[in-house]
Amino acid sequence: MAVYTEVTDEALEAFVAGYDIGSVIAFRGIAEGVENSNYALKTSRGDFILTLYEKRVAPEDLPWFLGLMEHLAAQGLSCPLPVRARDGANLNPLAGRIAAITTFLPGVWPRRVGVAHCERLGAALARLHLAGAGFAPRRRNALGPDAWPGLLEKSRIAAEEVQVGLGPELRHALAGIVAGWPQGLPVGHIHADLFPDNVFFLDGEVSGLIDFYFAATDIYAYDIAICLNAWCFERDFSFNFTKSSALLRGYMAQRGLSAAELAGLPVLAQGAAMRFLLTRLYDWLNTPPGALVTRKDPLDYARRLRFHLSVRDGTSYGA
Amino acid sequence: MAVYTEVTDEALEAFVAGYDIGSVIAFRGIAEGVENSNYALKTSRGDFILTLYEKRVAPEDLPWFLGLMEHLAAQGLSCPLPVRARDGANLNPLAGRIAAITTFLPGVWPRRVGVAHCERLGAALARLHLAGAGFAPRRRNALGPDAWPGLLEKSRIAAEEVQVGLGPELRHALAGIVAGWPQGLPVGHIHADLFPDNVFFLDGEVSGLIDFYFAATDIYAYDIAICLNAWCFERDFSFNFTKSSALLRGYMAQRGLSAAELAGLPVLAQGAAMRFLLTRLYDWLNTPPGALVTRKDPLDYARRLRFHLSVRDGTSYGA
Repeated sequence: MAVYTEVTDEALEAFVAGYDIGSVIAFRGIAEGVENSNYALKTSRGDFILTLYEKRVAPEDLPWFLGLMEHLAAQGLSCPLPVRARDGANLNPLAGRIAAITTFLPGVWPRRVGVAHCERLGAALARLHLAGAGFAPRRRNALGPDAWPGLLEKSRIAAEEVQVGLGPELRHALAGIVAGWPQGLPVGHIHADLFPDNVFFLDGEVSGLIDFYFAATDIYAYDIAICLNAWCFERDFSFNFTKSSALLRGYMAQRGLSAAELAGLPVLAQGAAMRFLLTRLYDWLNTPPGALVTRKDPLDYARRLRFHLSVRDGTSYGA
Repeated sequence: MAVYTEVTDEALEAFVAGYDIGSVIAFRGIAEGVENSNYALKTSRGDFILTLYEKRVAPEDLPWFLGLMEHLAAQGLSCPLPVRARDGANLNPLAGRIAAITTFLPGVWPRRVGVAHCERLGAALARLHLAGAGFAPRRRNALGPDAWPGLLEKSRIAAEEVQVGLGPELRHALAGIVAGWPQGLPVGHIHADLFPDNVFFLDGEVSGLIDFYFAATDIYAYDIAICLNAWCFERDFSFNFTKSSALLRGYMAQRGLSAAELAGLPVLAQGAAMRFLLTRLYDWLNTPPGALVTRKDPLDYARRLRFHLSVRDGTSYGA
């Protein structure tokens, strides 16, 4: 679930009064999401989302995230639009946190991903990349390849706890990923966490992309590689080539991929699997037993990583 | 949080198509609640709540709960009204569970309870008791005094784990509660779980009562005793006489209390503290580490119980 910070009624009333969005009608915690506290806020003017940023989000990054969302929304992308308070600020203090109000997006995230979802997702990802091109500020990817060796070092004990031999296996794989990491590929703003629960669909079309709090300036094709991991494996961790082909087809219909980008997909996909494996390993060790989040099994991504290590080239993904 | 059962988009579409409520626009898990899975469902016709009943609710009790809610809503009480499907059923299968759609209630539950909340709550509780009077079917309180000796027996080990000596203390207290349990007090349908997160307020007035899945036919004044436990203690477990006086004043303005009901309050309040202490003890032992709910500290209710054991008569609550 994702309500870590409780907001008193008085604090909520005072906070909302700072915005020109009417008066509070309802306020319910949202179960989805793991990084921040999210509330569905209904006012006399409509539906909004109130987000309180928790410790994993660096406060100094928030203006960049919100600026990117404003830029993308202005470009016509369906993403949460930060609502500005009467004084013009889109970030304001609430209950000891920094908080923002954003617009409510219609749609339902797909619990069971189908091939059609993957094609639409690919197209939406490409539109996101194109729409972000005019946003000048950059943000280094704090969870990019530079960070992985340090994360793996911190998770050595967790790796052995999860599976004997996993530590050496990951060190070997990571050395290969770092050595083979593609250079010179097109770079821009990427979402970097576009899992199914961050993509809403309505009547079969993408109706909204949410949760931009891992977004960064990095290799576009790495964002595709993250989606290949997040959207194209079945529950038994088998890789679904039909889905990945659809994802790439959808993407390339909006933004073409160079031969170098396609050739880079295997190592980028290995890196993406490594990135989620490493943060899951870290969480595995650092989630207190009473926490209100489920610990996700790091091995899910070890299985994906092994698949990507077995891949010869981009054609294995359908490109 | 309270989303234990995931619903696929296809299953949701098919389920909603059985109702005359328009088409799905949004579907988000709600963080509040611990017993069932609750989703905020927005359709082209408005806002609804979709509930999937989890294992703790006995399926055979569901028609009674929903029947009571329909009755109360028809009497003008602001509680969730079950929506009937096109075939007339208000309970239907979904994702391997029994599910219901109910109306959405406006309001915000009070994170910080004030005296004014307690007076309004008392009045709302009395209106609930009066409105329920015409509903003929009865439901035995499965978590009433008859159940407590068995629950305590099951929690002997947990009691000692939580605090050395707690087991004998509770056995002694329970013997006194059972021996002194009042007989012949007015009986009717009670909510039996009217904690602050089940009471919505809007502009200072009660705008809705929710979560009727512990409701039963039992002593009216026992419902007041539950509210005294749930609303009138401060965070340091000190008892707030001003709040309890306001609660009783609000109640009695709607429904008078007999001398016998007032005299019964101390033992009823002891029993109410015992009831929540016992289920918390049981959960303490039986909540798996990865579960998506926080274990609540049973000692919170041992402290309340000790207060109620120190009370001489109903005047200690303000009556």
